[in-house]
Amino acid sequence: MKVEDLRNTAWRFNERLRYIAKRGEVLEEEYEPIVREIIKRVKEEGDKAITYYTEKFDGVKLTPDTMEVPYEELENAYNEIEEDVRSALEIAYERIRRFHELQREKAFFMEESGTLLGMKVVPLERVGVYVPGGKAAYPSTVLMNVVPALVAGVEEIIMVSPKPNKYTLAAAFISGVSRVYQIGGAQAIAGLAYGTEMIPKVDKIVGPGNIYVAIAKKLLFGVVDIDMIAGPSEILIISDGSCEPSWIATDLLSQAEHDEMAGAFMITTDEKHALRVKEELERLMEDFPRKEIAKKSIERFGTIFLVEDMFKACEVANYIAPEHLEVLTEDPFSLLPYIKHAGAIFLGRYSTEALGDYILGPNHTLPTGGTARFFSPLGVYDFIKRSSVLFVSKEGFERLAEPTESIAKAEGLFAHFTSVRIRRET
Amino acid sequence: MKVEDLRNTAWRFNERLRYIAKRGEVLEEEYEPIVREIIKRVKEEGDKAITYYTEKFDGVKLTPDTMEVPYEELENAYNEIEEDVRSALEIAYERIRRFHELQREKAFFMEESGTLLGMKVVPLERVGVYVPGGKAAYPSTVLMNVVPALVAGVEEIIMVSPKPNKYTLAAAFISGVSRVYQIGGAQAIAGLAYGTEMIPKVDKIVGPGNIYVAIAKKLLFGVVDIDMIAGPSEILIISDGSCEPSWIATDLLSQAEHDEMAGAFMITTDEKHALRVKEELERLMEDFPRKEIAKKSIERFGTIFLVEDMFKACEVANYIAPEHLEVLTEDPFSLLPYIKHAGAIFLGRYSTEALGDYILGPNHTLPTGGTARFFSPLGVYDFIKRSSVLFVSKEGFERLAEPTESIAKAEGLFAHFTSVRIRRET
Repeated sequence: MKVEDLRNTAWRFNERLRYIAKRGEVLEEEYEPIVREIIKRVKEEGDKAITYYTEKFDGVKLTPDTMEVPYEELENAYNEIEEDVRSALEIAYERIRRFHELQREKAFFMEESGTLLGMKVVPLERVGVYVPGGKAAYPSTVLMNVVPALVAGVEEIIMVSPKPNKYTLAAAFISGVSRVYQIGGAQAIAGLAYGTEMIPKVDKIVGPGNIYVAIAKKLLFGVVDIDMIAGPSEILIISDGSCEPSWIATDLLSQAEHDEMAGAFMITTDEKHALRVKEELERLMEDFPRKEIAKKSIERFGTIFLVEDMFKACEVANYIAPEHLEVLTEDPFSLLPYIKHAGAIFLGRYSTEALGDYILGPNHTLPTGGTARFFSPLGVYDFIKRSSVLFVSKEGFERLAEPTESIAKAEGLFAHFTSVRIRRET
Repeated sequence: MKVEDLRNTAWRFNERLRYIAKRGEVLEEEYEPIVREIIKRVKEEGDKAITYYTEKFDGVKLTPDTMEVPYEELENAYNEIEEDVRSALEIAYERIRRFHELQREKAFFMEESGTLLGMKVVPLERVGVYVPGGKAAYPSTVLMNVVPALVAGVEEIIMVSPKPNKYTLAAAFISGVSRVYQIGGAQAIAGLAYGTEMIPKVDKIVGPGNIYVAIAKKLLFGVVDIDMIAGPSEILIISDGSCEPSWIATDLLSQAEHDEMAGAFMITTDEKHALRVKEELERLMEDFPRKEIAKKSIERFGTIFLVEDMFKACEVANYIAPEHLEVLTEDPFSLLPYIKHAGAIFLGRYSTEALGDYILGPNHTLPTGGTARFFSPLGVYDFIKRSSVLFVSKEGFERLAEPTESIAKAEGLFAHFTSVRIRRET
């Protein structure tokens, strides 16, 4: 864990800060040719290509008929998992659903001088949810990606997950996914985007995945909609020293244990506190099962920044635009107006990220790697689309015909002009 | 103009319909290497690369200092254009602004058993608007792309447009753009995405452009946000024969005159009416200044589909998911509930697309090429982003700690588990 003093410096030019901000840059070009090839084959050969790549990459032999997980298996998984986990997932499901219901979008109409103008809101018909498989298969990913679609009113939710474990299958059962296919990688994304004999074509694909999945989603953006471009995740903690260093250390580690590229950062005004957090973190890490991952993340990116006051802390936080921001100060609400860029803002000592990851209700799919400057948490708004509705009466038309003709002439679009003029002449 | 009979057929397998649906597929791979090269050079060399490519592609010699159009030039353009155009653009600006104000997004909070959860809504700080230049430079593009950003509260709106004409500059003046750069192509997109010595880095890039612009936007998606993946545009008219064939013909032509790839389609139950529209269109087209473009579009894609009833007409329309849908029937509102996929829905004989393109108020930047299945018209919602806000009291924490621990254990994330457990033990 590095300690970096930004007091009395032109902090925007701090090398460490710029290094952190750029860690999300990925060499896509390296992986692109193989992903393009996979997409092309799936588009042309459908299920045959998907089962081919599933054997090649996942080592699993499937036939088109065995790609889909039978509904009974979801139910079995639900019955099989520990009772406390089942109950916890059900509490989480319920809380996530209630929170997301507040995100519903409304149609509107305005009537004005002979025109009636509005927007209609329609849920997407069919969406695909990608859930990473194997060891890092997380039931919380299922809930967080499926529930907003459900609340939006999406009719059919298709989940794909390579080698899904019992927890993800149980979560699929709880959240009412329509179908589950045990496939993954770029081949699963391509299958969802184009549709195959066995897999229905979807309108949008959401959910996290490895570099192949990320590139496939980006390449297929336009054929389908996608959620966001996800990079390595991060936590940033603003601390005034009022919260126990060991609590802060575990919060930092709960990000670092995810992935070697994850970032764990703190900003504080208190130098002694900074050193205590660093010590606690280095001590606690030694006992953690995932310490190899956490250590790499902390060594490469882990940083505590020293600043002179809380306003500068917010400035630096806005520069980093973290996925998760914890404000561990005595009066965290007072800083809220100064925080412009963060995926999720956790306020106060008991609002630890883990609660938000699992159970509080707001979505844990958040913009990473600085993209909180322009991306939002996944939400119901991601699963609807709008259409404009325009009605013009004869009176409204007469009022607006002339200025429309003027602009059409200026743009040199004669047919546009004529489509108005002909209605005036008749 | 082709007439295609879908009555008593398995219409989804109709070849013409599938050909139309696929016309948006672009061979990106062909252009990608050159666009990548441009992006790379702009990222490394900044303004030097931009002026280099501007001379190479646009034949315009610029220095970093002359890339920006001085504010006086905008004002001069405003004073220079014809009075009726100026007044029309001002009416349009005002109507677009008023409509978009209804799209403002609201923050919300919910309080529940010791937790306070919500979302905050923040406008993007700085956005770039791309406006095509030269002959096809449209002032309406400026208004439609700038006003939603303005209503959202974006602080700085940077417009780029190669060889902008007086109308686009006047529209920039009317809509209150912050700065205008007379550059275009992939080099302008890259300049906005990364920032250069003279061009500030933006958070999002919107606006239409040629294939280089489209590919640059897609490649840089993630570095910045982008509006949508735009393909060739189209109009689809559902007609019951109650509207004058010549009116319909001009509406179809006003799409066809845009671009050789544009699509002009009609669906009707009335075979005689179909033939009259076809005749009118072919007759009218001969007098049009842009007839070469319109003819190519009509020959390649122009189609009138015959169906047995209005419900099937809506089904076919939903399959095509057109950018513009005109419902020219006696009672157009009665079909609205059956229309699921369309960018903008124009209802009734006086609601011609040209009015919507320029002056009614709803946005004319619409999803094209079938992407209305999942994309929305450009709106205020494109220029804001959200952050989740999560506060948990000690009581709330005590209630939710156990289920959080259960899920953390199931996911094998020990630091997540510990971050909760440590707060219970202290």
